Amino acid sequence: MAKRAASLFSIDVISPDADRGPAHMRVLERIQTAIASGALPLNARLPSSRTLARDLGLSRNTVDEALSRLVAEGFVVRHRGIGSFVSGSLPGRNRRSSQRTLDTQRRPSEVRVSDRARTLMNYPGHYKAIEPIPFTPSLPPNEFFPRKTWQRLLNREVRRPGADYWHYGASNGLAALREAIAAHANAMRATQASADQVLVTTSTQQAVELAAKVVADPGEAAWVESPGYQPVQHCLRGAGLNVVPVPVDEQGIRVQAGLYLQPHARLAYVTPAHQYPLGYEMSLLRREALLEWSRGEGSYIVEDDYDGDYRYEGRPIASLQGMAPERVIYIGSFNKILFPGLRIAYAIVPEALVGPFVDAKHAADGHTALLAQGVLAAFISEGHLSEHLRATRKSYDERRLIFLKEAQVLRDVVRFGPAAAGMHVTASFRDAKIDDRAVAEACAGRGVVVGALSRFGDVNLRGLVFGFAGAAAEAARAGLGIVRETILAQK
Amino acid sequence: MAKRAASLFSIDVISPDADRGPAHMRVLERIQTAIASGALPLNARLPSSRTLARDLGLSRNTVDEALSRLVAEGFVVRHRGIGSFVSGSLPGRNRRSSQRTLDTQRRPSEVRVSDRARTLMNYPGHYKAIEPIPFTPSLPPNEFFPRKTWQRLLNREVRRPGADYWHYGASNGLAALREAIAAHANAMRATQASADQVLVTTSTQQAVELAAKVVADPGEAAWVESPGYQPVQHCLRGAGLNVVPVPVDEQGIRVQAGLYLQPHARLAYVTPAHQYPLGYEMSLLRREALLEWSRGEGSYIVEDDYDGDYRYEGRPIASLQGMAPERVIYIGSFNKILFPGLRIAYAIVPEALVGPFVDAKHAADGHTALLAQGVLAAFISEGHLSEHLRATRKSYDERRLIFLKEAQVLRDVVRFGPAAAGMHVTASFRDAKIDDRAVAEACAGRGVVVGALSRFGDVNLRGLVFGFAGAAAEAARAGLGIVRETILAQK
Repeated sequence: MAKRAASLFSIDVISPDADRGPAHMRVLERIQTAIASGALPLNARLPSSRTLARDLGLSRNTVDEALSRLVAEGFVVRHRGIGSFVSGSLPGRNRRSSQRTLDTQRRPSEVRVSDRARTLMNYPGHYKAIEPIPFTPSLPPNEFFPRKTWQRLLNREVRRPGADYWHYGASNGLAALREAIAAHANAMRATQASADQVLVTTSTQQAVELAAKVVADPGEAAWVESPGYQPVQHCLRGAGLNVVPVPVDEQGIRVQAGLYLQPHARLAYVTPAHQYPLGYEMSLLRREALLEWSRGEGSYIVEDDYDGDYRYEGRPIASLQGMAPERVIYIGSFNKILFPGLRIAYAIVPEALVGPFVDAKHAADGHTALLAQGVLAAFISEGHLSEHLRATRKSYDERRLIFLKEAQVLRDVVRFGPAAAGMHVTASFRDAKIDDRAVAEACAGRGVVVGALSRFGDVNLRGLVFGFAGAAAEAARAGLGIVRETILAQK
Repeated sequence: MAKRAASLFSIDVISPDADRGPAHMRVLERIQTAIASGALPLNARLPSSRTLARDLGLSRNTVDEALSRLVAEGFVVRHRGIGSFVSGSLPGRNRRSSQRTLDTQRRPSEVRVSDRARTLMNYPGHYKAIEPIPFTPSLPPNEFFPRKTWQRLLNREVRRPGADYWHYGASNGLAALREAIAAHANAMRATQASADQVLVTTSTQQAVELAAKVVADPGEAAWVESPGYQPVQHCLRGAGLNVVPVPVDEQGIRVQAGLYLQPHARLAYVTPAHQYPLGYEMSLLRREALLEWSRGEGSYIVEDDYDGDYRYEGRPIASLQGMAPERVIYIGSFNKILFPGLRIAYAIVPEALVGPFVDAKHAADGHTALLAQGVLAAFISEGHLSEHLRATRKSYDERRLIFLKEAQVLRDVVRFGPAAAGMHVTASFRDAKIDDRAVAEACAGRGVVVGALSRFGDVNLRGLVFGFAGAAAEAARAGLGIVRETILAQK
């Protein structure tokens, strides 16, 4: 599966088939097929005609001719200065029935999977247990987690007489945990939250899905960042939303481009503190523009503050939620700062939406498991979370500096993006012809995990995403050596 | 909220307002308002005209005239011999925009909640922690749970070197747990399941929502039992499905009625081992009819085996899944047999649907928390689950017999349904004029919890649902005394 997706543009979909018709018609047909099969989702950004021409070994004129026809037939929409995108609604056909037809060719006739289940296939992520190795992004290194403290609290809470961990719990979460979360986020991230606005969830994914359900109906639009965090985009598609990728620049999401592409989105999913994966901070001007849009449109901003606790240079930027608590749904996750197997995250929601969010959580899974909530509440309120963040901020910073020093070995082949925050850094290839997916795959074969930048929703970007927090000095040096060899072998 | 819903038919919605127009027009308007506001959901069953006439103190002719007009205008559909239902699609109006209009009258203009979030409001269930008191249905009594054993296993697993509880886990669940579940369900419930077909979820609700997403798209139909388990019906509505309540009789769901109401449903949610709440077992003939429909239609049966482990009289009936593993999505929950705060349930899914289910679970919340999965796997594979089921089967049976004996005190006012299985029994009032919601509310005020039968989706049924497993002899006697007094006071 990874292989097929990796070669989406370069081999499977568009490589011209020597025998059939003029080159531009073959390009056109392959793109239509990719759209009809869902390999190219609605609203997906297409590679630039220059990139396509280069990858296919065809003239740019041929590719432009194919794209013009796709535009004329309504399969592709071109936005000058922004790019070409698969159309949001396909022309002259009922999308559901056309997908059904394709579907039945592949399966026994009595098995039919829903359209929305089909949108969730090819989900980018983990189905197998993941061990942290250099340079898995977004995976907290286990060695820093104070497991003994956790075990002690667990041991105490599981035996606590009169604890409510054994019955049904409140759908919005244990009161003690909601209070601890509100106090922590208000102090560390400048949110403005009461414990009543906190909803305990199992994960960022669940928080985003609940937000999608509460503020949008199927067919309504959601802005996401391009490049951006793909699992959330799949989650939004699975919730029936029309996902509109909006380009980002050094200031964050380009609100003007969003207004141009689809002003009437019901929500915008953004990562203001540390854009995923490029690492930019959203500028104050951009924040204000985004909030202005949200106020005017009555839409909501979903702020994923996935590693807002880690900033090594400059002042920490306050959360967007603190600027407009009535328009922002703030999401934080303990799975990314403590350990992923925990499955506790949270949303801070506008007061007016508390009821609908609790209803939606209740219908989704009743409530989150109780004992772990109790242990986490104690872990936070007894000061262990602050201590852990202090300690890991220091350790990750050391690793960041070591990584950046060792990464000099790559300076002739990549340009690094900002590395002032979080747990990962992005590098773009100086030679944009290098296939980043092939590099990532070859590295994985040698025991080094790097993300391919083109997988984050903008196939025009080619480079690598490195998680630096999981690699101590020796591992970082060895891993970077392997990455360098692999890139050079691909040139 | 509870109060308003309790009096849906008897006061708020239909009580004629003395000042305005002819009686039948007032009845008509109140029902239309209830439909437009969502208080009466699409497809909801209406009380019989006899019941309405009695409750309103109007002649049956007046009520029939109102109903005929509602039928003529397309708001209500009448099925001879089955009943009257709110129409599945309302006439001459866009449902979304009409609800929006109502919505904005109640909220500040900048707050807009989605239609699907609106369907989840008035969710019947728990938002507050629930303590088990007589006669809360579906709540396992804590005193039988071997908490010391659980604590010992937890203590061992949390310290186990090399355990995978700290990283990301597989989306379908820990392998050890899936194997233990398959072995348990195959042995105890005659399912035909490999560990690969098992998907670990947090709850029955989550398993049902995943099933809805995987096999149906918004707007497609789902059969549910009437009366039936309301939280699942809300979950299906929240997933965008057109919920079609199909009446049940002593043999279970009336498949012929389902075929008449909506043959093209994508799934049927049923409780074959112990119909919730009436307690009937689905007959073999009915099982075969349901499977025949499913095979012909290419639809799926969602079998909720919520208390299939408890049968006190007669042979245990095998699961439906064992009869047709390719058509049945079987759901079991440890939250109902161990402790609700655990949040671990599972689905056994047809082989052809394993991939889409895992994708959907992954997009929903990544995976279920790991440590608890590990503890549960050990609990099952080391024999503690079997032991717990043996012990509780015996204890619940004792309580059942005591309850049935003490419940003789009610024999002049109620008729009890079957009590051969599970953890609850249903009683219908001999005098159908008694308001069961008022009785339940008055009992709650005196510290006794009983379910009002009319809340399970068929307002023509009036009676009470008693959980017997949570009440020891003394509590059962005292509780039943209070229930009797309350019923007599309502007469």
